[in-house]
Amino acid sequence: MSPLGRREFLHTTVAALAGGMAFRQGDWKTWRVNGARVNQHLTELSRFGANPQGGVSRVAFTQADIEARAFAADLMRQAGLDARIDTVGNIIGTRAGTQPGTLPILFGSHIDSVPEGGNYDGDVGSMSAIEVAQTLAERSYRNRHPLHVAIWCDEESGLTGSRGYIGDLRAEELRRPGRDGVPLADKIRRIGGDPERVAEARHAAGSVAAYIELHIEQGGILDEKGIEIGIVEGIVGIHHYDVTIKGFANHAGTTPMDRRRNAMLAAAELVLVVDRVVRSVPGRQVGTVGRLLVKPGAPNVIPGQVDLTVELRDLSTEKIESLWTRIHAEGQEIARRYGTTLAYERQHANPPALSDPGVRALIVDAVAGLGLSSQPMPSGAGHDAQDLAQICPMGMIFVPSVKGISHSPVELTRAQDVTNGANVLLQTVLRLDQT
Amino acid sequence: MSPLGRREFLHTTVAALAGGMAFRQGDWKTWRVNGARVNQHLTELSRFGANPQGGVSRVAFTQADIEARAFAADLMRQAGLDARIDTVGNIIGTRAGTQPGTLPILFGSHIDSVPEGGNYDGDVGSMSAIEVAQTLAERSYRNRHPLHVAIWCDEESGLTGSRGYIGDLRAEELRRPGRDGVPLADKIRRIGGDPERVAEARHAAGSVAAYIELHIEQGGILDEKGIEIGIVEGIVGIHHYDVTIKGFANHAGTTPMDRRRNAMLAAAELVLVVDRVVRSVPGRQVGTVGRLLVKPGAPNVIPGQVDLTVELRDLSTEKIESLWTRIHAEGQEIARRYGTTLAYERQHANPPALSDPGVRALIVDAVAGLGLSSQPMPSGAGHDAQDLAQICPMGMIFVPSVKGISHSPVELTRAQDVTNGANVLLQTVLRLDQT
Repeated sequence: MSPLGRREFLHTTVAALAGGMAFRQGDWKTWRVNGARVNQHLTELSRFGANPQGGVSRVAFTQADIEARAFAADLMRQAGLDARIDTVGNIIGTRAGTQPGTLPILFGSHIDSVPEGGNYDGDVGSMSAIEVAQTLAERSYRNRHPLHVAIWCDEESGLTGSRGYIGDLRAEELRRPGRDGVPLADKIRRIGGDPERVAEARHAAGSVAAYIELHIEQGGILDEKGIEIGIVEGIVGIHHYDVTIKGFANHAGTTPMDRRRNAMLAAAELVLVVDRVVRSVPGRQVGTVGRLLVKPGAPNVIPGQVDLTVELRDLSTEKIESLWTRIHAEGQEIARRYGTTLAYERQHANPPALSDPGVRALIVDAVAGLGLSSQPMPSGAGHDAQDLAQICPMGMIFVPSVKGISHSPVELTRAQDVTNGANVLLQTVLRLDQT
Repeated sequence: MSPLGRREFLHTTVAALAGGMAFRQGDWKTWRVNGARVNQHLTELSRFGANPQGGVSRVAFTQADIEARAFAADLMRQAGLDARIDTVGNIIGTRAGTQPGTLPILFGSHIDSVPEGGNYDGDVGSMSAIEVAQTLAERSYRNRHPLHVAIWCDEESGLTGSRGYIGDLRAEELRRPGRDGVPLADKIRRIGGDPERVAEARHAAGSVAAYIELHIEQGGILDEKGIEIGIVEGIVGIHHYDVTIKGFANHAGTTPMDRRRNAMLAAAELVLVVDRVVRSVPGRQVGTVGRLLVKPGAPNVIPGQVDLTVELRDLSTEKIESLWTRIHAEGQEIARRYGTTLAYERQHANPPALSDPGVRALIVDAVAGLGLSSQPMPSGAGHDAQDLAQICPMGMIFVPSVKGISHSPVELTRAQDVTNGANVLLQTVLRLDQT
């Protein structure tokens, strides 16, 4: 028996003295999810939108998504939750609390995927959240707070469901046709939402006790170090800049080398500058040129224009801005050198969303109680949790992704890691309810 | 009267002693084209495929091309030429010669354009070739050699007509569907060719006395220096390499900077190496990365693959190969440094086509006779002339392109330069016929 175990024993004993009900509930720190079941549910979920080459294409609002949502709502009902679709299209499963006037504890994730995505991404957190409810039902746990399990709709294309939940979806956005020509409103209707009444899905700041999300890391840090749980310090801010470099398109055969205004050369230098500047200061910030379009793009034409994206992420907005200032200054100098021009537009600047220190402490305690290894880390990826952080204390739990591969058919989180994550979620929800 | 003028006077006088016909023909060095007419024909030709924003889209085999071809054939007939369409689809206008057994003198260009091209490109040489025939008809010139005026079909997408003329079109190429899904054979049929009998268009080596082509420079050297005529030393060889750099696509937020295998970084360095290596040796060689595709190409994904083209051009194949050897070696080193791989395929390697020194000397003499300024230069662009060089002595005459702009609605060759070019063509054809 470890010292911690001894403390738990004492706690249980003390609780036992308080009375029968408390005695039965008092051993809750020893409660564990059914690991086989949660992993089985993950396997069953992977049928919806399954691709022949592995993984799923379960893009939000498609038939695969709609069928998977019905499956998840069924599991919620089997777990004793009252499952309903809110006006944005989120599935919210409710378990009433015993103590009037307490705020709900909210936890969950999403089950939509990117095209040709994997079977773990938001699925692990979603199936685990339902598993937590199922475990509590089987234990006949009498939660003080209402418990709300959320399956957010359309996480992948812009956190649609969680933004609706915090009141951050504008009518204009609902009406505007998407890339496929279909307005978001029509899609929300397709999954049982009611876009005319989307305001009713909104939750004001202070109306939720806390939000907890379990998710796969989507990076390789935990897997590489052999650490079982990541305790998320926050979700990084993301600044996305659209940069346009203009030179002059001309014949690649007849234009001498010293008469060119080659936008591709300036763009190539800028790509290298982004990497160099981001690496030049200590920290875990990242910077990426992920999209780069060359115009006109023919082998025998000197590129006249290059459009590229620069994406910078960090937990500190100040650091992002200072990196961009340096990149932009160097970029202007490069553009001049090549007889080109550089212009940019900041497409978006998501602020970082820090997790709540109190919630983080409860996760640390839950991890310790389970005897798991852990480390604090930023989330480099965006999550619904960043929206919820605007209205309530937020915490996130990461489990390892093998080789850090994500958004890919070969994405993998091992069964034991899924079970570990679900147990940390269970123990964190219980601690939240008890405090 | 200049010293050259005096020599011409003497020549004319001597010729005059030889008899009446020779006397009338003997003043041929003073003959000039009708500059107003050839420029008027250029303007009329620009109706076919005219774009609202200027220039033309007269892509080969389109309705605009077909109508422009009918217009050109009409002009040929007005110039006394016997205009026929050969089995490849070239329009060949013939003027019989007086001396049996002499080989034909061939001259011409093309009237098809790139999409959104200009009004000068191949049009200047085509209208001037017909103008030369018209001038000779008006002078009742009794040419010794047969004169063949060619409007080559489909220059822009691969020198189709001139390749057919030298027997370099394979049956497989005729059958294969193009990018638009239509086989070349069907297109050739559309313009009056007979793809089943394409072999009949073939001309063996030694069957043509010489080929002369007048064309706009498509570069800015003549315009910048204020020189009136370019005497083409040859058409550069073109090597085109398709390069693929493979790294590993991963999440741009969750993958630390030191865990990336970013294909875009390696590609950026390679782009700069191409430029540096090509500039590192003296000469007029050029090298260009004109197409570069980033996969998957999303702002939030580290590029896993970049496909790019490297195009190298020079009059010397040896120089091209030595440049590529250096670029490839540096590329491999770069690829290793970024944890990526680099593979390439040489898509094509067109050999350079040198102009004939004898023909070049006649052009130099014609230019001098016209009192025009000139300089020798390579052609960085491909032309039908490079095919003809395989079967006969070839010469090319360049006129200035304002600001070197080409394949663009704002392409411009001034009327006086068009007239100058047509006169040099006339005088060169006459010299060829007289020698």
